[in-house]
Amino acid sequence: MPPQAAQGMDTAMKLADLDTPALLIDEPRMMRSIAAMQARIDALGVRLRPHVKTSKCIDVALRQRAAGARGITVSTLKEAEEFFAAGFDDIVYAVGIAPQRLAQALALVERGCALKIVVDSAAAAEQVLAAAARAGVTPGVLIEIDVDGHRAGVPPEAPQLLDIGRLLAGAGALAGVLTHCGGSYDCRSAAELEAMAEQERARCVHAAERLRASGLPCDSVSVGSTPTAHCARSLDGVTEVRAGVYVFHDLVMAGIGVCRPEDIALSVLGTVIGHQRDKGWILIDAGWMALSRDRGTQAQPLDQGYGVVCDEAGVVLEGWIVAQANQEHGIVAHRGGAAAAGDVAARFALGTRLRVLPNHACATAAQHARYAVVEGDAVRHVWPRFNGW
Amino acid sequence: MPPQAAQGMDTAMKLADLDTPALLIDEPRMMRSIAAMQARIDALGVRLRPHVKTSKCIDVALRQRAAGARGITVSTLKEAEEFFAAGFDDIVYAVGIAPQRLAQALALVERGCALKIVVDSAAAAEQVLAAAARAGVTPGVLIEIDVDGHRAGVPPEAPQLLDIGRLLAGAGALAGVLTHCGGSYDCRSAAELEAMAEQERARCVHAAERLRASGLPCDSVSVGSTPTAHCARSLDGVTEVRAGVYVFHDLVMAGIGVCRPEDIALSVLGTVIGHQRDKGWILIDAGWMALSRDRGTQAQPLDQGYGVVCDEAGVVLEGWIVAQANQEHGIVAHRGGAAAAGDVAARFALGTRLRVLPNHACATAAQHARYAVVEGDAVRHVWPRFNGW
Repeated sequence: MPPQAAQGMDTAMKLADLDTPALLIDEPRMMRSIAAMQARIDALGVRLRPHVKTSKCIDVALRQRAAGARGITVSTLKEAEEFFAAGFDDIVYAVGIAPQRLAQALALVERGCALKIVVDSAAAAEQVLAAAARAGVTPGVLIEIDVDGHRAGVPPEAPQLLDIGRLLAGAGALAGVLTHCGGSYDCRSAAELEAMAEQERARCVHAAERLRASGLPCDSVSVGSTPTAHCARSLDGVTEVRAGVYVFHDLVMAGIGVCRPEDIALSVLGTVIGHQRDKGWILIDAGWMALSRDRGTQAQPLDQGYGVVCDEAGVVLEGWIVAQANQEHGIVAHRGGAAAAGDVAARFALGTRLRVLPNHACATAAQHARYAVVEGDAVRHVWPRFNGW
Repeated sequence: MPPQAAQGMDTAMKLADLDTPALLIDEPRMMRSIAAMQARIDALGVRLRPHVKTSKCIDVALRQRAAGARGITVSTLKEAEEFFAAGFDDIVYAVGIAPQRLAQALALVERGCALKIVVDSAAAAEQVLAAAARAGVTPGVLIEIDVDGHRAGVPPEAPQLLDIGRLLAGAGALAGVLTHCGGSYDCRSAAELEAMAEQERARCVHAAERLRASGLPCDSVSVGSTPTAHCARSLDGVTEVRAGVYVFHDLVMAGIGVCRPEDIALSVLGTVIGHQRDKGWILIDAGWMALSRDRGTQAQPLDQGYGVVCDEAGVVLEGWIVAQANQEHGIVAHRGGAAAAGDVAARFALGTRLRVLPNHACATAAQHARYAVVEGDAVRHVWPRFNGW
């Protein structure tokens, strides 16, 4: 196993030294979120396997691991390769694999990576097993379960679950079952969230029990989404929870109710570059290229536009959001319109710096190549992140 | 002036050799769009200054230049630096500059780059002139004009236009006026587009005439947006047109009516990774990370979801769109629902490759680090692109 090494650099910079737009992590907030989720999942008696698609950053994952996380989840083979090279060798690739990519995945297994892949049909299982036979290595395979009609997976009660299980077990490749309860993002109350978490648990465990009742092995029972991980009351029968966004949190999570805006560790630092005084608009140099086009709060009760505006120190400026975004222009406006905005040129002079809390941490982070990791006005570290496939 | 050198590589690959998701340029389509826009703007007797924020690719800009384009437009100083290093020395930075970035911009001027910057207030002009005095170099400065209430700029009839002009001219820095008619994106008919193009022209020229009538110089009268560039009937009084998206085109442009879907040169190649047969869903490995979160057609008469689906050769599959997108999953569905979809597992077997035409070329391209430039089933070139600030 390769060594685990941090990739970032420590700095003596101040926030004022950063050019904008810049992607910030508030380190104390992130560390609190890591500790809180770890404690919650520890108390429920299962393993936490963070989804690193949110950060795509070795330095963040090292902190999750130091707090007690076991293994990681990835959304691309690029993530698997980057994290394996950095010493993470227990990896679940939680997206159905393109057949043309199987050789690449199996090469990681050959090199000693405990990489698990997912399938949700007999056809996919047959392709995996054929490629495994050609490569002479056997990956662990998880059967993806559909618990909420949201995306991929076989229903736990479907006959083909056992067909897929027998195919995989016959080749010694059946590692268990996995689900992602994406439907939890549509929940609007604590009661709905608890019910959705229980549905995720019960349906995934039911699939595992059906496999076992047929004499098939099912070591892993892997569930997860940040909302259900926050709200599950029992994880009986589950072996691990996967969650990603919790490490930074975002406005979608705040809208669902699993964090507060002041828990959000990720933000984009921007600078005021102009005004339209009559409209009460402040133009900043953080447009959708820096914020992403994600409008995940659009369908929530409180639409946050392209993000909630804070002062440079990260304190929410009540009522101010990025109302519109062009490629490199963000238009900051007050929810109450021009009358509520007052004299924007006087209050937010050219050069004033503001932070914007993101709708969706994964999407906003993906617009950047690095994180400036801050505590108060100090930039403690600069950590690289990567994209691509 | 540094030499102009291509950065891409020629290849002997086939489309089938590419891993997915991959960003494709259909080279013949792009070359037709470059030639058509150049011919149109040549015929109107003004210069075409392409906006390279769409491609962020030296190799694309070299083709625009070879076709007759004069100078480039950029949206970030990173673009200015990358393109200047590649031999483009006539650059308009068409976004109001953050004061903290002025030294960086002036350093480019010092190195011989004819970099023009924009201001839309006396306060911004004063900051530019103060920084220029400190640096000992004088950049050309364009006054941004608001022609449609869409974003930044001073109204052409505003008293402060002349105040800003006098400030800049006093330091020998006044280069002209510039506008971007973003309101053209909301047009829904040819008549509306023509009227908007004329409004853009007339209001920007009016600003130039007011400056000149006050004895101030105004060499450049720079207008532009892809829709108005396509629809202007006269550009009297204008000296240059800026346009970006035309080089690739996209579904937003098709929805406005300035191109057809079969003119769109940019697409994302994806692979079928699963199905939900009851729902008529096909899952592909191109989610929002590959397609972007841009939903620019959402407000158009025909909402194209996250993109229009084509076969691997690029032929539109009528009725099929990417209806939903998660980070690495695209859900392809038929507009007519499950009944119209038929047996998706039979028609779109695992491993089938599909192309997705983007809502917004700038946003989709920004999700990728390179272009595979194809003609038929041949991958002619691989061209790098960059992001960041």
